[in-house]
Amino acid sequence: MKFINFTSARFPNGTYGVFADDKKIEVIKGGLLDPIVKSGDVVDESEVISYLPPINPPNILAIGLNYVEHSKETDDRIPTSPLLFMKANSAVTGHKANIVLPHMAPGRVDYEAELCVIIGRKARNVSVEDALNYVFGYTCANDVSARDAQASDGQWVRAKSFDTFAPMGPYVVTDIDPTNLRVMSRLNGEVMQDGNTSDMLFPVATLVSYLSQGMTLLPGTAIFTGTPSGVGFARTPPVYLKPSDISEIEIEGIGILSNTVVSEQ
Amino acid sequence: MKFINFTSARFPNGTYGVFADDKKIEVIKGGLLDPIVKSGDVVDESEVISYLPPINPPNILAIGLNYVEHSKETDDRIPTSPLLFMKANSAVTGHKANIVLPHMAPGRVDYEAELCVIIGRKARNVSVEDALNYVFGYTCANDVSARDAQASDGQWVRAKSFDTFAPMGPYVVTDIDPTNLRVMSRLNGEVMQDGNTSDMLFPVATLVSYLSQGMTLLPGTAIFTGTPSGVGFARTPPVYLKPSDISEIEIEGIGILSNTVVSEQ
Repeated sequence: MKFINFTSARFPNGTYGVFADDKKIEVIKGGLLDPIVKSGDVVDESEVISYLPPINPPNILAIGLNYVEHSKETDDRIPTSPLLFMKANSAVTGHKANIVLPHMAPGRVDYEAELCVIIGRKARNVSVEDALNYVFGYTCANDVSARDAQASDGQWVRAKSFDTFAPMGPYVVTDIDPTNLRVMSRLNGEVMQDGNTSDMLFPVATLVSYLSQGMTLLPGTAIFTGTPSGVGFARTPPVYLKPSDISEIEIEGIGILSNTVVSEQ
Repeated sequence: MKFINFTSARFPNGTYGVFADDKKIEVIKGGLLDPIVKSGDVVDESEVISYLPPINPPNILAIGLNYVEHSKETDDRIPTSPLLFMKANSAVTGHKANIVLPHMAPGRVDYEAELCVIIGRKARNVSVEDALNYVFGYTCANDVSARDAQASDGQWVRAKSFDTFAPMGPYVVTDIDPTNLRVMSRLNGEVMQDGNTSDMLFPVATLVSYLSQGMTLLPGTAIFTGTPSGVGFARTPPVYLKPSDISEIEIEGIGILSNTVVSEQ
């Protein structure tokens, strides 16, 4: 199934819906993780006014250096176990919303295309074999990062937690295989990253199991699963986001998450 | 004012209250950050069955190395700006609850006494001068840390986010000066840390202002403000938490947060 969280003229305060076909959205009552109860309303996607973030996650867990080629381009070690950091959930924004370059660190802001896992039910000490049973679905995410703050802090949280630094969406898809999905990013239409989740050092089931050891994954938790090579700061010359740029994340079977870059006012 | 979140025989599902004197709790309707509406019920603190965490924070922001002597004992650099990391909010627990040594990293679990700031209203790009107007109050926190995971990951999130690794409470006090509070920890009654918030590298107003630059601090956000020297891993020989230990955090003007250590079952 394919879910969307949106506003339209008839639903100005937002509602979830589930796609009946390519364009037709059946409105559902309640939240993304609730049992599906259709209201009977149908909205064509062309009527969507804004794409809301697919979830307000209690925690955003994020994995660093989960693709070998990206570890190499950062000159960082290749992890021997999943490397966890977090992003503040105040950073979440939706498809077509702006990425704002913060006045604290506007000059070296970078994109990172990532498959985002959404946990469906409480997971603690789950096995790798059982892990995907705790996943509700998948969406596209952009792990936006202020590289100067990331380098100066050492800890990555601040650099990755500025407002709008966690675009997610536009859809949540429940019935895809997370082990073989093409993950791309484009900057102003040019392909910058083109990887596949099959190249993850630690695939989704391993991540969910590992993170759940001693740590409860609450329903709605978002897991950003790491990015393939091709990020801006590792390029020669480096490429950073600047006002009016369009940063797109495309994941096979899900769709395209697109955001425009603006300066902080 | 002094607030408490608790259960009692009459309030088995929990309620907030505000102290009328040393022992008498006036029950209030709604959440910690809501306008105070007294229900008319009064509970003596001796009737309290369990101390609930004072808040369910949307984010737990935490500051590393915010006391010079602690920076020195860790052999780490002394930060030139506040060093942010995060703890997952699934780690929150309350006064008198257990700290659970996780099976993933049971052997080098450490205590850290910290003044915890609770944000009262949305803060973004606030000045140092104005920052304390966004603070609701203060509580005691224990920034429990699995030192082996902290060292091996480099990023500190996982080591500090195991379930029960963020004890908070027992009270939230609104009318204290955060710049001059004695902060202590005791292990089985023996004083391990004895510092004062006056020794913070970056005092509370500076932290709130700094963190709010480009990042919205949501109401209820908890800020763990760093720990004084005397943590377990820096001692000779090192001291780590073991089953049946009692770890206490005492902060002047707030009270004592006490937790018993157990192994994961």
